[in-house]
Amino acid sequence: MPGDHSSKQYDTDLETIRSKVLTMGGLVESQFNDAMDCFRGGDIVKAEQVIKSDETVNSLEVTLDDACSHLIVKRQPAANDLRTVVATLKVITDLERIGDEATKIARIGKQLHERGTVGVLNHYESVRVLASSAANSLHDALDAFARLDEKLAAQIIAADETIDNEFRTTTRATVTFMMEDPRTISAALDILWVAKAIERIGDHAKNIAEYVIYVVEGKDIRHTDYVYTKLNSKP
Amino acid sequence: MPGDHSSKQYDTDLETIRSKVLTMGGLVESQFNDAMDCFRGGDIVKAEQVIKSDETVNSLEVTLDDACSHLIVKRQPAANDLRTVVATLKVITDLERIGDEATKIARIGKQLHERGTVGVLNHYESVRVLASSAANSLHDALDAFARLDEKLAAQIIAADETIDNEFRTTTRATVTFMMEDPRTISAALDILWVAKAIERIGDHAKNIAEYVIYVVEGKDIRHTDYVYTKLNSKP
Repeated sequence: MPGDHSSKQYDTDLETIRSKVLTMGGLVESQFNDAMDCFRGGDIVKAEQVIKSDETVNSLEVTLDDACSHLIVKRQPAANDLRTVVATLKVITDLERIGDEATKIARIGKQLHERGTVGVLNHYESVRVLASSAANSLHDALDAFARLDEKLAAQIIAADETIDNEFRTTTRATVTFMMEDPRTISAALDILWVAKAIERIGDHAKNIAEYVIYVVEGKDIRHTDYVYTKLNSKP
Repeated sequence: MPGDHSSKQYDTDLETIRSKVLTMGGLVESQFNDAMDCFRGGDIVKAEQVIKSDETVNSLEVTLDDACSHLIVKRQPAANDLRTVVATLKVITDLERIGDEATKIARIGKQLHERGTVGVLNHYESVRVLASSAANSLHDALDAFARLDEKLAAQIIAADETIDNEFRTTTRATVTFMMEDPRTISAALDILWVAKAIERIGDHAKNIAEYVIYVVEGKDIRHTDYVYTKLNSKP
């Protein structure tokens, strides 16, 4: 059994990793915001920065996975503590995939502006609500992970349904544009791919929220109706 | 330090988990094949089976994550052994997401046939090559994971570029259909969403292959050009 000293060391090491994961989270959050800026305003330089910073996100993924492994081997945590490390390993994967989706958005934004097809459709307006919901979920997910706030996590999971509905609304509206004026098809498809990327960022935020609840409650609530029970229960 | 006995127990426990992960892999592979069958032939019963079996895949994810955690706590593996458990945890996530994508394909196939829009475009033909490449990659990835075959894993990673190219070919062809005859727009979008799901299954197969190399080589090759060096090196 690890003594007090070892357990304190474990806590310190874990906090170091968690704070680096939050740095990674801040980075992908900026990537997403900048990618959306670029999709709206056509800032090519910003788009290239998003694409470039994906390298940093990728190397953070590798470094932090490694740090988690080292922590396990060195401190041999008990079941309760291990749960946090396992959840952190999974969160790191979700953050890296959010970076990938942001990079896709930046690439499409860049193309849109290079081809000069920005004005064809009100492309940013089509995804504005969806993007703002996903950005909120991501921000809250990082907050919930930082403070291990299971109440906030439950709200994020419930909000994913709204994001999915907004995605369907965007899709329907965009298809209507295409049908009314087939010259908009190319531009409309760019909107659809961006909407898909945003919807996936929402999914990853939801995954992170599920891992927060797993850490706090010691209960794996993935694929259950735990959240609905939780949100509807009396305080 | 764990003695010989403990280390043997670790090996036995690990093999049990790995064999269950392969069962999960076989299940999502069937889901993908059945979903494609349904997209081609409109077998609604099969589509519903795919959607239903997603529950099994989801509960396998939770059970196997748990088994990995128990293994770590009980056997306290050394760095080398731990690498396999960490990679297995990540593989489990990719398998579950493959199940999600297969379920999406089954849902679209079901809708397509319920709406009677099957004949509008040669929808299956549009994704046939892409689907077959992704199915091969997934099959090989499970094989590479079963036999810890890093050579095969390197081939899968290299093949992902082909899959991405096939995805772009499908997209271009489908957009041409839409432009030539706007009445095909709805049916064409179904093809695009299915193509996207297949492309992602290819991505997950690639992720699994990367974890295989991480286990065998003890080297994290994600986001590096390791594979190209490896494939081009003299034996």
